[in-house]
Amino acid sequence: MSGVTVSFVSGTGPAGFGLAARFARAGDEVVIGSRALERAEEARAMVLEHVPDGRVRAALNADAASTGDIVFLTMPFQVQRESVETVAEQLAGKIVVSMSNPLSVEKGRVTVNLPEAGSLAEEVQHLVPTARVVGAFHEIHVRKFPKLDRPIDSDTIVTGDDDEAKAAVMRLCGHVDGLRAIDGGGLYNTRFVEGFVAVLISINFRYKAGTALRITGLPEGI
Amino acid sequence: MSGVTVSFVSGTGPAGFGLAARFARAGDEVVIGSRALERAEEARAMVLEHVPDGRVRAALNADAASTGDIVFLTMPFQVQRESVETVAEQLAGKIVVSMSNPLSVEKGRVTVNLPEAGSLAEEVQHLVPTARVVGAFHEIHVRKFPKLDRPIDSDTIVTGDDDEAKAAVMRLCGHVDGLRAIDGGGLYNTRFVEGFVAVLISINFRYKAGTALRITGLPEGI
Repeated sequence: MSGVTVSFVSGTGPAGFGLAARFARAGDEVVIGSRALERAEEARAMVLEHVPDGRVRAALNADAASTGDIVFLTMPFQVQRESVETVAEQLAGKIVVSMSNPLSVEKGRVTVNLPEAGSLAEEVQHLVPTARVVGAFHEIHVRKFPKLDRPIDSDTIVTGDDDEAKAAVMRLCGHVDGLRAIDGGGLYNTRFVEGFVAVLISINFRYKAGTALRITGLPEGI
Repeated sequence: MSGVTVSFVSGTGPAGFGLAARFARAGDEVVIGSRALERAEEARAMVLEHVPDGRVRAALNADAASTGDIVFLTMPFQVQRESVETVAEQLAGKIVVSMSNPLSVEKGRVTVNLPEAGSLAEEVQHLVPTARVVGAFHEIHVRKFPKLDRPIDSDTIVTGDDDEAKAAVMRLCGHVDGLRAIDGGGLYNTRFVEGFVAVLISINFRYKAGTALRITGLPEGI
């Protein structure tokens, strides 16, 4: 038992469900939020199918946002701004994880539309100035999260201006089998991570592969 | 013998020298360009010290640009635009490799100043519309090139809109021990690679490391 409560705003999709199940399996307390309580209940039931002894609660988004020690934003990126605005009050002072990438795929071509703030993560910071925003999980393809029988064999670059918040999220990454968290500097750097995911997706198209990222040359034990 | 002539515009620095020596060692014909012929001659002598049977010629930049089948831009990024303008005529129709990153480091903080064109590589394309511009080698720290006794254990993401030119540069990457070239899509993607290098440098600062990048999950034999 880690003693950390992890919550998900709009956590009923593959990223929210998959991460909720993985954290529940690791012993974390999990709150799955949705705009509709019955959808959150469905996602909770799915998690409990895989993790029968999981500590999982279903909640409305505002409740999820105010309950979590670490709050994940797991809505589609197109509505992240709008969703954050609706729970801005609850996110004040919280550790908030922004993991989406502002990418569109059309006819095998990826385009990136970074918001005016520079990145989706920085946009959250603008919307909720007291939030302790951390960028993470950008490199992980969304389809990998719900495949609970497989580790997530990847590095994830974690960015943020609040060192304690960043360290808390990096510890939490350690609850996901296979995943290694790497400190990627300040929140400003998130724009380059979000953009770089377009390149990873281009590589996936080109090689018909499901690639991941590994940073080599780091000291042992990172 | 590969039959490819590789030339370097402003090739007397560590990247130009290191790559020239590595390509010469692999049997490629190499032309080292400089604004001052005597500096090119010095660099040529240094290459021949390490690769006595290398086919290496010293030249003025315009001569180097017009001679190479594949032309590397190895000047400091701050003067790349200006340098390209002076040899624009010679670069017309050529395969041109842009490898610099528009990064500044101050007090351990990295900032990125992507040019209006989106990336340095795209800027070259704007300056020389007929050039077959390819982005490559961005992820390799410049200090690694001249350490000729060490392989360059890294992937490099190669971008470009001209598939033949990109393939030629990817084959050339295979002449560098340890290096693996990965097709990263069109030239547009270069902006995300150039930006992402800021994150790699931040990681190097944070962990006091000399990191490199590996893309995992690709088919065997890439």
